Amino acid sequence: MNPDIIVVGAGLAGLTAARRLSAAGRRVRVLEARERVGGRTHTLRLPHTGLSVDVGGQWVGPNQPHVMALIHELGLEVYPTYDEGQNLALIGGKVLRYRGLIPPLPPLVLADYALLSRRFEALARTIPLDAPWTAPDAATLDAQTFDTWILKNARRPQTRALMRLYAGAVFSAAPAEMSLLHALTYTAHGGGINGHTLTRGYALQDRVLGGAGSISQRLADDLEDVQLNSPVIRVEQNGTGVTLHTPDGQHRAEHAIFAVPPTLLSGLPFDPPLPPRRAQLQQRLPMGAVIKFMAVYDRPFWRDAGLSGMAISDTGPVTVTFDNSPPQGRPGVLLGFIEGAEARTLMDADEDGRRTAALGSLAQLFGDEALTPLETVQRDWTAEPFSGGCYGALFGPGVWTGYGEALRAPVGRIHWAGAETARVWMNYMDGAIESGERVAAELLGGLG
Amino acid sequence: MNPDIIVVGAGLAGLTAARRLSAAGRRVRVLEARERVGGRTHTLRLPHTGLSVDVGGQWVGPNQPHVMALIHELGLEVYPTYDEGQNLALIGGKVLRYRGLIPPLPPLVLADYALLSRRFEALARTIPLDAPWTAPDAATLDAQTFDTWILKNARRPQTRALMRLYAGAVFSAAPAEMSLLHALTYTAHGGGINGHTLTRGYALQDRVLGGAGSISQRLADDLEDVQLNSPVIRVEQNGTGVTLHTPDGQHRAEHAIFAVPPTLLSGLPFDPPLPPRRAQLQQRLPMGAVIKFMAVYDRPFWRDAGLSGMAISDTGPVTVTFDNSPPQGRPGVLLGFIEGAEARTLMDADEDGRRTAALGSLAQLFGDEALTPLETVQRDWTAEPFSGGCYGALFGPGVWTGYGEALRAPVGRIHWAGAETARVWMNYMDGAIESGERVAAELLGGLG
Repeated sequence: MNPDIIVVGAGLAGLTAARRLSAAGRRVRVLEARERVGGRTHTLRLPHTGLSVDVGGQWVGPNQPHVMALIHELGLEVYPTYDEGQNLALIGGKVLRYRGLIPPLPPLVLADYALLSRRFEALARTIPLDAPWTAPDAATLDAQTFDTWILKNARRPQTRALMRLYAGAVFSAAPAEMSLLHALTYTAHGGGINGHTLTRGYALQDRVLGGAGSISQRLADDLEDVQLNSPVIRVEQNGTGVTLHTPDGQHRAEHAIFAVPPTLLSGLPFDPPLPPRRAQLQQRLPMGAVIKFMAVYDRPFWRDAGLSGMAISDTGPVTVTFDNSPPQGRPGVLLGFIEGAEARTLMDADEDGRRTAALGSLAQLFGDEALTPLETVQRDWTAEPFSGGCYGALFGPGVWTGYGEALRAPVGRIHWAGAETARVWMNYMDGAIESGERVAAELLGGLG
Repeated sequence: MNPDIIVVGAGLAGLTAARRLSAAGRRVRVLEARERVGGRTHTLRLPHTGLSVDVGGQWVGPNQPHVMALIHELGLEVYPTYDEGQNLALIGGKVLRYRGLIPPLPPLVLADYALLSRRFEALARTIPLDAPWTAPDAATLDAQTFDTWILKNARRPQTRALMRLYAGAVFSAAPAEMSLLHALTYTAHGGGINGHTLTRGYALQDRVLGGAGSISQRLADDLEDVQLNSPVIRVEQNGTGVTLHTPDGQHRAEHAIFAVPPTLLSGLPFDPPLPPRRAQLQQRLPMGAVIKFMAVYDRPFWRDAGLSGMAISDTGPVTVTFDNSPPQGRPGVLLGFIEGAEARTLMDADEDGRRTAALGSLAQLFGDEALTPLETVQRDWTAEPFSGGCYGALFGPGVWTGYGEALRAPVGRIHWAGAETARVWMNYMDGAIESGERVAAELLGGLG
């Protein structure tokens, strides 16, 4: 018997949609290209220490209602990100120790940064979250890069470096790679810069016990028809339904939901072809570049030195670190992000090369003890053909204003979900789940 | 018997490569997704007048050695673009008549434009044509949009309008949609602004007798194994060869050449996956947006009024026109381009809506006689799934510097051709042919 609805992509968006639709009595099939569910979340057990680690998305916070509610609904638990002690900042070749939010930079730099971020956030508040192309002055904001705005508005090189760190940490990209309108929209989705970058009260507050991958695993366990290793290679729709071809066969349903990064659909043959605005949108949403690296130690030795494990650095390849130790505090885990241009530099390197480079960064910050971990793990998301990169799509100049309207507009019996389509917290787990809820409501309304 | 080499895409790039490789004794198969050869060139016979028209690429010039040589080699002929009489410029609501290159704008505007274009071309001369990422200051040039540069350097709104017209006419995009480095690179490929935009001595000098589509047709006629209606939907390579899957079967060869717009490869499954830099490059090369519109009249009535049929306009939807009549001068054909933002505005309209809008533009320029053509023809290239848009790919900020190295680098037994990979005249017919010659040499050297 054919399902009513086929969901393509067993990440958080697709699985959430499938759960809601199944609960409403629809027969749902999920087709997943990979041999696992979870998409851009993935929890791995390390071979040496047996520790479970998230090599994909991992943080959630109280300002993210969709993911917090789903975690609760599934009976999962969260625990706080370790953030006690002093932070480090490696800027201009010097390691600074500090408490709180702001590195101890010269007063003129701090004043400049305060002014700049306030101006940026004020501008961000003018952007309608779900329709940035309707913002006042959208065309002008979308005709320049975020980098151009930083260069024009930041008076100090250190301020520029801080904004570039923000772009790296939050977009996994250089500020040149996105339009100002996109940087503002995305920032507004998190309620401001702090919403994206801080722990207590914000997006980095908590981690999921058992790993963020367990959200998708629980969702999938509750579904009846999830088919792995089933990449869709051709799509047909007519007045009565949609046919999805995989290398092993075909699947027919009344409706289909695509819950994958839009760039992966750019070369996929649709019959009839997608409307031009949708087709050209899919050409214009490249994914960010990030390598997530973790080093595991017998214990979190930096805590003895009064350090939180949190650091920022203007010297690559690792530019942001966290203490990623499990709740019981043993073993100790340092997490380092290699983002944007830094990720591109190491894109062609092998695992050993990346390991050596990343450990070098950690040693610069935390001392030579960082050089001898029990084990390390890394995930280059740009090397994952069924994600195309992480954290999510970058909207370059002209894309929101030229093509934004096509982002969520259904095409006949085909609907669009995925973190890129979220109306809040786009490209986050929260946004993925929001998009799954939204597309399920869209279909239940339509079938209703 | 398996071919030695499979070429994917029967446009000018793929067919040129196939011709050179066949001539060197290789067994070559060409797989083409469409039911026709020619790619972004296409010559149609109009139903009412029987006239053959190019709804795709049409111009060639003496500054384009590859296409001129191939035309000669194939025994085809060219004829001059009609450019006698006065040109029109509709700027700021007023229609101006003028002779020569430059509309009769106020002297301060002309001085500003002269300064701006000279500065732009001087900067363009610093860009290595085949490796723009190595240009002096490449990072800075690639971190901003072309629009940002125009805003900063043009002192008069009319000068900005002229530069936006240049972007529309030559890139089929707004200046916001590309990086400054890309605008410079592309301009340098044509030897400067005039190289791209003028008739006698430059890229718009000539048209191909019988239509530009006849180049591809002749190339295909000389080949033994061109298979139409064969879109590639999956690719595998190993140490001995490449297997290409189509909906109807599979094809195996020692090497494969992809000669299609890179964006069409973004969602295509490759096993093993493409290297990250190549995969992310393919996500970052969206196609321009252009609708080519022609209206056919009993005779070229504008010539009676001393007009060349060439016009520019800052009022859409048509922003550039030409006299596209056949060499004998009957019937009369007006050609209008709808480009970039104007094409997006009409992207969701139907053919009638676009026809009415385009004829309205022609009437504004050439009078009400333009409203009653014998017939019209239009081609919205954004609606062509196997092109994805025209004239070619746009490199947004960060793309040349972050990913340019992957543009022509072979991946194992897979080689890359197509107008986007050209080392000169990229996205033109000349560049497509250059890329075909280059990839053939690459393979013959390697197979040697």
